[in-house]
Amino acid sequence: MKISRLTICLLAIWGCSILSAQEQDSGIIKNLYEEALSSDTAYANLRHLTEKIGPRLSGSPQAAAAVEYTKQIMKNMNLDSVFLQKVKVPHWVDKGSKAVVVSSIFGSAELNVCALGLSVGTEKEGIEAEVIEVKTFDDLVKLGEAKIAGKIVFFNQPMNPKYLNPLRAYSEVAKYRTQGAKEAARYGAVAVVVRSLSLTIDEFPHTGSMHYDSFTQKIPAIAICTQQAELLSSWLKKDPHCKFQLKMDCRQLPEAISYNVIGEIKGSELPDTIIVVGAHLDSWHISPGAHDDGAGCMHAIEVLRLFKKCDIRPRHTIRAVLYMDEEIMQSGGREYAALARKNNEKHLIALESDNGGDVPIGFSVDADDSIVAKIQGYQELLNPFGVYYIKKGYGGVDIGPLKSQGVPLVGLNLNLQRYMQYHHSANDTFDKINRRELQLGAAALASLVYLCDKYGLN
Amino acid sequence: MKISRLTICLLAIWGCSILSAQEQDSGIIKNLYEEALSSDTAYANLRHLTEKIGPRLSGSPQAAAAVEYTKQIMKNMNLDSVFLQKVKVPHWVDKGSKAVVVSSIFGSAELNVCALGLSVGTEKEGIEAEVIEVKTFDDLVKLGEAKIAGKIVFFNQPMNPKYLNPLRAYSEVAKYRTQGAKEAARYGAVAVVVRSLSLTIDEFPHTGSMHYDSFTQKIPAIAICTQQAELLSSWLKKDPHCKFQLKMDCRQLPEAISYNVIGEIKGSELPDTIIVVGAHLDSWHISPGAHDDGAGCMHAIEVLRLFKKCDIRPRHTIRAVLYMDEEIMQSGGREYAALARKNNEKHLIALESDNGGDVPIGFSVDADDSIVAKIQGYQELLNPFGVYYIKKGYGGVDIGPLKSQGVPLVGLNLNLQRYMQYHHSANDTFDKINRRELQLGAAALASLVYLCDKYGLN
Repeated sequence: MKISRLTICLLAIWGCSILSAQEQDSGIIKNLYEEALSSDTAYANLRHLTEKIGPRLSGSPQAAAAVEYTKQIMKNMNLDSVFLQKVKVPHWVDKGSKAVVVSSIFGSAELNVCALGLSVGTEKEGIEAEVIEVKTFDDLVKLGEAKIAGKIVFFNQPMNPKYLNPLRAYSEVAKYRTQGAKEAARYGAVAVVVRSLSLTIDEFPHTGSMHYDSFTQKIPAIAICTQQAELLSSWLKKDPHCKFQLKMDCRQLPEAISYNVIGEIKGSELPDTIIVVGAHLDSWHISPGAHDDGAGCMHAIEVLRLFKKCDIRPRHTIRAVLYMDEEIMQSGGREYAALARKNNEKHLIALESDNGGDVPIGFSVDADDSIVAKIQGYQELLNPFGVYYIKKGYGGVDIGPLKSQGVPLVGLNLNLQRYMQYHHSANDTFDKINRRELQLGAAALASLVYLCDKYGLN
Repeated sequence: MKISRLTICLLAIWGCSILSAQEQDSGIIKNLYEEALSSDTAYANLRHLTEKIGPRLSGSPQAAAAVEYTKQIMKNMNLDSVFLQKVKVPHWVDKGSKAVVVSSIFGSAELNVCALGLSVGTEKEGIEAEVIEVKTFDDLVKLGEAKIAGKIVFFNQPMNPKYLNPLRAYSEVAKYRTQGAKEAARYGAVAVVVRSLSLTIDEFPHTGSMHYDSFTQKIPAIAICTQQAELLSSWLKKDPHCKFQLKMDCRQLPEAISYNVIGEIKGSELPDTIIVVGAHLDSWHISPGAHDDGAGCMHAIEVLRLFKKCDIRPRHTIRAVLYMDEEIMQSGGREYAALARKNNEKHLIALESDNGGDVPIGFSVDADDSIVAKIQGYQELLNPFGVYYIKKGYGGVDIGPLKSQGVPLVGLNLNLQRYMQYHHSANDTFDKINRRELQLGAAALASLVYLCDKYGLN
């Protein structure tokens, strides 16, 4: 092939325009990061959400206050549109639990416990019964009804500290929290006490969802802090007749009405195609939810603020969605997807931040290989800003229901080494958040949204 | 080329052995990480170092206690050798500073200050003088002697929050701390107050080294916390005649004798060639030095513990070195290198951990390109464990003097977003360290030491 001067010239121009597009993108991403690192808006808002409003389980007055507060934040941002999406949510209330262990050898001690989410309460006079410790569901089988009936089963399976990713350890043993009550009830247990899902030995009980089935008795379920799980275990070794006195005042009420909170910047070219970046607004009844998932909510709102502040006019509509009720039924995420389907809304891509507010390290993409590859093409641009990988992987709980509509999902990955220490506990407080790390999460999301918006996914 | 069956067969065997070496390495690295994540030895030792011994500036009784304590830790580890290296260190003592700002408009307020390292003190009766605020050295030139003489110069240059790497911002403005006193003294200033080098607005003053020269008056130098730097600046805008009352009881004493603390596992094949992994044992007089650099010391010791626990018999001698006096004169690092030269010790490579105890992210290598490339070849093995990059870059302060002996240097890079909040202040406490993150730093170092030991650097 003979290459004409014209061809060379055209190739040179093409080369230059490629280069300048990259340079331009790099410059815009730099702007996003610089603005993020200079601002304390999201940090101040998170302080209010966690310290002034606090724990905000779906159906609670605090959840309603959080809806109002975040709606107002976005109203004040001069967005193109801010609105609520009505969601029916579970409404479980907990007025407090008390557990005392009584031993003829060691005396008695009040324990740091909390009700597991959706647990039934005890009768007013409480339950008093002997405690029997198990590690696994297999232990229940081995012990059988003869040794379990009438007792309180204590699931004392620690998380495996050896895995680099604490969520792997979490997923291995979460079943004792989610299914422990129904499994123990099969053998006639009267309640269950579950070791908190944490890799740290401390005094904070960690709650989380649990489920009954329709075949077995609904028995009360509580979590005990890891420190006292160890203590209780050591007592039981020497005094197998230790008793628990347990009082729990929690119950499920009829469904309540709550809302997803949504703000958007309209697309300049393709306003009917949406890029959604979201997180969940609810948190457990005992937890201010700074990492889970107040930080994620601030990430989502901050993406819109960064776009406006850096004067980026998106081609597609960019939506920040704060989903209600991730913790119990994921009703906000489901409703969002159902409405999207009903209203024939087209989503280009959905991003989620539900791994806390620590320093971001990468993205995981749940999509066809070609789309994963397209997004991985941005790795080089994002690497200098500490986004070390883009890999095929999990998107997120709340955006999950969009998958069946063919929407590519992206999860923000963050350093998780500290996460389980706070997760679902009263220890998940504002002071555990570093302003710069919080802002880097928002900047990473904003940068990826910018690139997906500019180049599409084809 | 015709490929014989024999060739194919040999290639296949070669392929298998390559594969199995990689698998073997991967397995050993996994062991190192699993053991690290399961242990709380280093964490408990760091608690003792920071909470029982505390601030340990070179020459202080606490520094001597830290030498004794860490020597004893290594003695108890059944190493092949534990010894001390005598080092002459500076001995500067600070018995406390007091600063009060007095304004005819706002009243007076006591300030959170600390002496800068090596500063002279005030006369017993203290100094009282008007304060003049500057941002830069250029401002001194502009103001000139007429406006500066007899006053206290207040350097109020904030760190730039926009950079991803806080050390970049630090290096830009550290000159006001290190050289502010001598620059201001040229114009007749009687003392300097320097805004603390922190990206956070809080109540902790941050100290650090400063230097005089032989041409100008040695004037006292203190740091003020960022919160009060802002306050003072706002007062000065409305009341330019604000005065400072300053009393500082600090002075330099004659050099003292201290020690580098060294433990080693003898090499099985090349015992005379040393791989050194180190950190500095001293910390500033006001700082428990959990991140700077207690964490690094624990990293270094933990590398040896991991080798023994995982039953890895190194080919080369592996040394953990805890250098004395990084903060003022780097006399421990210099002495180590001087002795290495004198004793004809051969070092294969020197690693350093002096960026705190947060989650590790990569390594930077200060060596010839061929060696950088060789080490970068381990990237794939280390990536699954969160070592996201190996790049050409800075090694470390204490291993720096080995460079002229041709020793390749490696620095452990960690997440630094929180680091400046603690650095050189009373806020650098044990509770800022996460056990898992601390252990991951040690595992990353141990893994790289393992690979360099096994494969050498040629």
